[in-house]
Amino acid sequence: MSATSANKDDFFAQTAVPERFSEKYELMKEFVSKHRAIGNRVVLVSSGGTTVPLESRTVRFIDNFSIGTRGSASAEYPLYFLQHGYAVIFLYRLRSLEPYSRHLQRRLMDMLEVKGDSVTVKHDHTSSLKSILQQYEGVKAKDLLLSIDFTSLAEYLHLLRASAQILNAIHSKALLYLAAAVSDFYIPKHEMPEHKIQSSTDKPLQLSLQLVPKMLKPLVKEWAPDAFVVSFKLETDRNILIKKALSALDKYQHQVVIANLLDTRKYEVVLVTKETEKPILLSKEDSDKGLEIEEEIVKQLIARHKHFIES
Amino acid sequence: MSATSANKDDFFAQTAVPERFSEKYELMKEFVSKHRAIGNRVVLVSSGGTTVPLESRTVRFIDNFSIGTRGSASAEYPLYFLQHGYAVIFLYRLRSLEPYSRHLQRRLMDMLEVKGDSVTVKHDHTSSLKSILQQYEGVKAKDLLLSIDFTSLAEYLHLLRASAQILNAIHSKALLYLAAAVSDFYIPKHEMPEHKIQSSTDKPLQLSLQLVPKMLKPLVKEWAPDAFVVSFKLETDRNILIKKALSALDKYQHQVVIANLLDTRKYEVVLVTKETEKPILLSKEDSDKGLEIEEEIVKQLIARHKHFIES
Repeated sequence: MSATSANKDDFFAQTAVPERFSEKYELMKEFVSKHRAIGNRVVLVSSGGTTVPLESRTVRFIDNFSIGTRGSASAEYPLYFLQHGYAVIFLYRLRSLEPYSRHLQRRLMDMLEVKGDSVTVKHDHTSSLKSILQQYEGVKAKDLLLSIDFTSLAEYLHLLRASAQILNAIHSKALLYLAAAVSDFYIPKHEMPEHKIQSSTDKPLQLSLQLVPKMLKPLVKEWAPDAFVVSFKLETDRNILIKKALSALDKYQHQVVIANLLDTRKYEVVLVTKETEKPILLSKEDSDKGLEIEEEIVKQLIARHKHFIES
Repeated sequence: MSATSANKDDFFAQTAVPERFSEKYELMKEFVSKHRAIGNRVVLVSSGGTTVPLESRTVRFIDNFSIGTRGSASAEYPLYFLQHGYAVIFLYRLRSLEPYSRHLQRRLMDMLEVKGDSVTVKHDHTSSLKSILQQYEGVKAKDLLLSIDFTSLAEYLHLLRASAQILNAIHSKALLYLAAAVSDFYIPKHEMPEHKIQSSTDKPLQLSLQLVPKMLKPLVKEWAPDAFVVSFKLETDRNILIKKALSALDKYQHQVVIANLLDTRKYEVVLVTKETEKPILLSKEDSDKGLEIEEEIVKQLIARHKHFIES
C-alpha cells in the first residue's frame, strides 16, 4: 500500500463487513439460484450515491448529487429488463428513488382523499397509478425484483463484490449495470476521528482523502469474469468525456461505458464500446410525452447482451 | 476577513442569491402578514441538513446524516403548534421528511391496491392514514403551513435571514425553532474548482474548509431581536454537551438550547436555558405506542413562549 492509494484487499480489510450483510448475501444468492433454475437472465442495477463518512460516529459525510433517477428508471422498464426474461437485483442507496414508487414521491398527500370509510387516490391520478401498480404487482408475483439497500461506500463495495461473485454462477447470462455514483475518495478508518469534528477552534478544517481502489478491475478479472459489464462515466467537461470512457474500457476490459454529462444526462448519452460510439438522444417532444432515455439505453444493452451470450 | 473565518457580510456577499429566492421571500411575507392580521403566532421550523458543494458544477458535496425527523415531526404536532394558534413556516431540505407525508414514505406501493376502476389504500392502513389526511386537509384549509425548501448551506442561510427579518414584524409572537443541521464548514466560491474533481492523479485529495460564520449572533441581535429563539445542539460526546449548550446561550443570548446526543436523540433531550436544565425523556413503552419526543419538546416550548410574550 502506497501512502496515497490502497489496493482492494487493503480496502476490504480496513472496512468492517456491513450490518445485515449475511442476510442480504443469502437473499441475493437464493434469488440468483431461483432464476438460474428457470433459465432467466439476471441484471444487477446499482443506483444512487455512496456516502463517505468523515467521522466514525458519523454526523458528516461526503455525498454526491445522485438521487437514483437513472438506476430506478432502468430497473423498472416494463417493456425491457423485466419483460425480456430478466430478473433484477436493485442495489440502491437507502432513501433514493426506487422502481415504481419513484412515480409517487411528489405531493403524495395531495393525491389521496378520504371517501367515507376508505382512503382513495383522486380521480385525476387513478389511471397512471393503476398501470404502475399493476406492473408492480406483476413483478412481485413473479419475484422478478430484489431490492437491496446500502448507504456508505464501504457497504456498497462489500455488496457489489458479493453480488458479482454470486452472479458469476450464471456466467454470460449475468448483466451488471453499474449506474451508482460511487465516490472516488474516502478516509481510511485509522485516519478518522471518532467524535464529531469540533468547530470551536478558529482554524480551517483540513481533510485528506485517499483514492478508492478501482473496483472495476477485480470485478471484471476475478469476481464476475463471465458477465456482461456496463459502467457509467459522468463528467461536467465535454472535452474529456469520450477519452475517459475509452480509457476505462482499455483499463478494465469490460464491455460498455455509458458516457454522460451532468447537465444533459437526461437527454443525451453515448454508448461507448472499444469499437463504437453510439449516441442515444431523447427529443424534447418525446421527453414532454413522458418518455425516458433509459428505455432506449436498456433496449440497446439487451440487444448487445443477447449477442454476447450467443457468441 | 481573516484567513480562516468570514464574517456574515462576507459570506452573503460571496454566495449568490438562491434560485427562486424572491418568490420564496414573497410567499413568506404574505404568510406572516396574513397570520399577523388574524393574531396568530408564527413558528419557523427549520429541518434537515445543508449541503456544502465541493465543486461549482456540483457533483460532490458534504452533507450530514439528518433526514428531518425532528423538524418534520415538530412542525406537525396537531395538538401543539398548529392547534395552539400557531402557523408554521417549514423551512426544509428538499427531499427530507415533511409533515404528514413523512408517515407514508416507507413501502408505499404495498399500501395501495387496485379496486375496480379506482386505486385505494388497503384496509389495514386506512384508519391511521385517514386521521393523518384529515389533519393535513384541515391545516391546508386554514393555510396554517407554508413549506419552503432549500438544498445548500448558502440557500439555507439566505432564506433563514429573510424569514427571521420577516418574522420580526410580529415581535415576541415569533418563535424560531432551528432544528436544521447546518454545516459548520464551507468552501468559499473563489477556492472551489469549476469542474468535477478528477481522480486520475495518484494523489490524496486535500480539502480545506473554512468556518461558516455563526449566524445565531446576527439573527438574535439584528434580524429578529424580538423573537423567541430555540437552537439545537447535537454532539456525539456526552461530556461536552451541556457545556456547549450553555456556552451557546452565553454567546448568542437567545432563549433555549435543545441539547441532544446522536445515539439517544429520539428518547432523551435536555432543554437548556441560562437558569435551568430540564431533561425530557420518552420511555420505551411510550415509544412502542408510537409516541414521539417532539410532542413534549413542543409542549414545553409553547409554555415558555407564552410566558415570554406575556412578560
